[in-house]
Amino acid sequence: MTAKDTGADLHPIGRSPVVILVRPQLADNIGAVARAMANGGLFHLRLVAPRDGWPQEAAWRNASGAQRLLEQLTLHDTVADAVADLHHVFATCPRPRHIVKPILTARGAANELREITSRDLTCGLLFGPERAGLDNDDMAQADALIRYPMNPAFTSLNLAQAVMVMAYEWWQTIDTTPVRTFMTNESNLATKSKLENFLTHLIDQLDACGFLRNAPKRPGMIRNLRHLFQRGEITEQEIRTLHGVVTELAIGRRIRGRLEKDMVDETT
Amino acid sequence: MTAKDTGADLHPIGRSPVVILVRPQLADNIGAVARAMANGGLFHLRLVAPRDGWPQEAAWRNASGAQRLLEQLTLHDTVADAVADLHHVFATCPRPRHIVKPILTARGAANELREITSRDLTCGLLFGPERAGLDNDDMAQADALIRYPMNPAFTSLNLAQAVMVMAYEWWQTIDTTPVRTFMTNESNLATKSKLENFLTHLIDQLDACGFLRNAPKRPGMIRNLRHLFQRGEITEQEIRTLHGVVTELAIGRRIRGRLEKDMVDETT
Repeated sequence: MTAKDTGADLHPIGRSPVVILVRPQLADNIGAVARAMANGGLFHLRLVAPRDGWPQEAAWRNASGAQRLLEQLTLHDTVADAVADLHHVFATCPRPRHIVKPILTARGAANELREITSRDLTCGLLFGPERAGLDNDDMAQADALIRYPMNPAFTSLNLAQAVMVMAYEWWQTIDTTPVRTFMTNESNLATKSKLENFLTHLIDQLDACGFLRNAPKRPGMIRNLRHLFQRGEITEQEIRTLHGVVTELAIGRRIRGRLEKDMVDETT
Repeated sequence: MTAKDTGADLHPIGRSPVVILVRPQLADNIGAVARAMANGGLFHLRLVAPRDGWPQEAAWRNASGAQRLLEQLTLHDTVADAVADLHHVFATCPRPRHIVKPILTARGAANELREITSRDLTCGLLFGPERAGLDNDDMAQADALIRYPMNPAFTSLNLAQAVMVMAYEWWQTIDTTPVRTFMTNESNLATKSKLENFLTHLIDQLDACGFLRNAPKRPGMIRNLRHLFQRGEITEQEIRTLHGVVTELAIGRRIRGRLEKDMVDETT
């Protein structure tokens, strides 16, 4: 997969936050981080003193098409070096203690990062090593801390999952997808008159077979059927299918009725 | 880690959506899914026909404390069996085609799931196999589809990452953390009078050393310093530190002044 495929070339530094992994331990995770970043439209990755050196084969195996991010990443000895060209730095920190600094939710941080980049300022996100997280000196390099609101009874978050949450929230800041849409490929919603035609067909057949023979209950039963078929949006294709279903069931009933009549005729 | 640690015992079925992995391929991913679920307060996991059978050692290794979810999961032959006791089923589906069904964003789905559970109805989330995703028959079991708004140029989402996004959004539906807070452990914010005391101290010393000797510029320089120290919230502890910094710098200057005077005395 090329950089064009991930959209990486569309996002020069300054257009999206730089992800900085501080002393990452597992190459598997570095690869998974690259993939999660590409999912959310983050393309700039920096590593500070990765434990097992760099490059690592396992990272490439785990990047699933986001290898370009690994090829383009930069390697740094210290956090100070990794953030030197950035204007704003946020640090993820599940359990901040004794620190005097603003704390943001993931969503709040994503919105602030979007606002920062819209002012043509560069920004970065620090993620700590898998086991211990960022240390106090790392966090002192940051303008603000990010703490994800999640289950406080189970805060052990995988490194790539932590990056995924920020990448996801980063993308949501510009996404305008409606919360609920309706998929009607190759088909159009049925108009009310087409629904009415079907209901008339259904009621005629139900009258014919005697299902609606209880006169006092008939209006209520019809209303219930109408409610049921009105509940969701029905397409023209589905209306055609329903016409076929009713027709075929009615034919079956008529054939059975004829067979039963034949059997009665034979036995008499 | 016990179920109490993850909070699993606090959430009987019906209080949170059931996660249903359909024909999952990699046990690693099943373990990572359990961990992501616990992060977001989802505790009920079901597997439909896992490719390599069940149980699998690798799942336990990757669950990082969420093993209880694996111990309590149920195994099913078909999707129909896995959803039989549920009232609502949503299916994640990155690229729905030719399907007439509501499509929700992850956030929209999480809000609808929360609303469903608040009505004491049970609900489930279908996730497809790693490579192919859910097939058309799987999706026909669902009331609605979920499509995450993410980078359309890179939609290859790891299974555990996909679960993470829904688990994260599920938790956000009840989270009330302020978007931005301020961490002031063991310290109190300084009042304006304490800040003013420090500024007076600083200005006195800057007057003494001649830094503010340019009378026309003096008010502006003082105002700039005042703006700088007003920019963020300053704690009482930080004010004490700043007093010390100014005092010590001033002592250094005085000592140097004395040394220079001594040197002048010696050379004359």
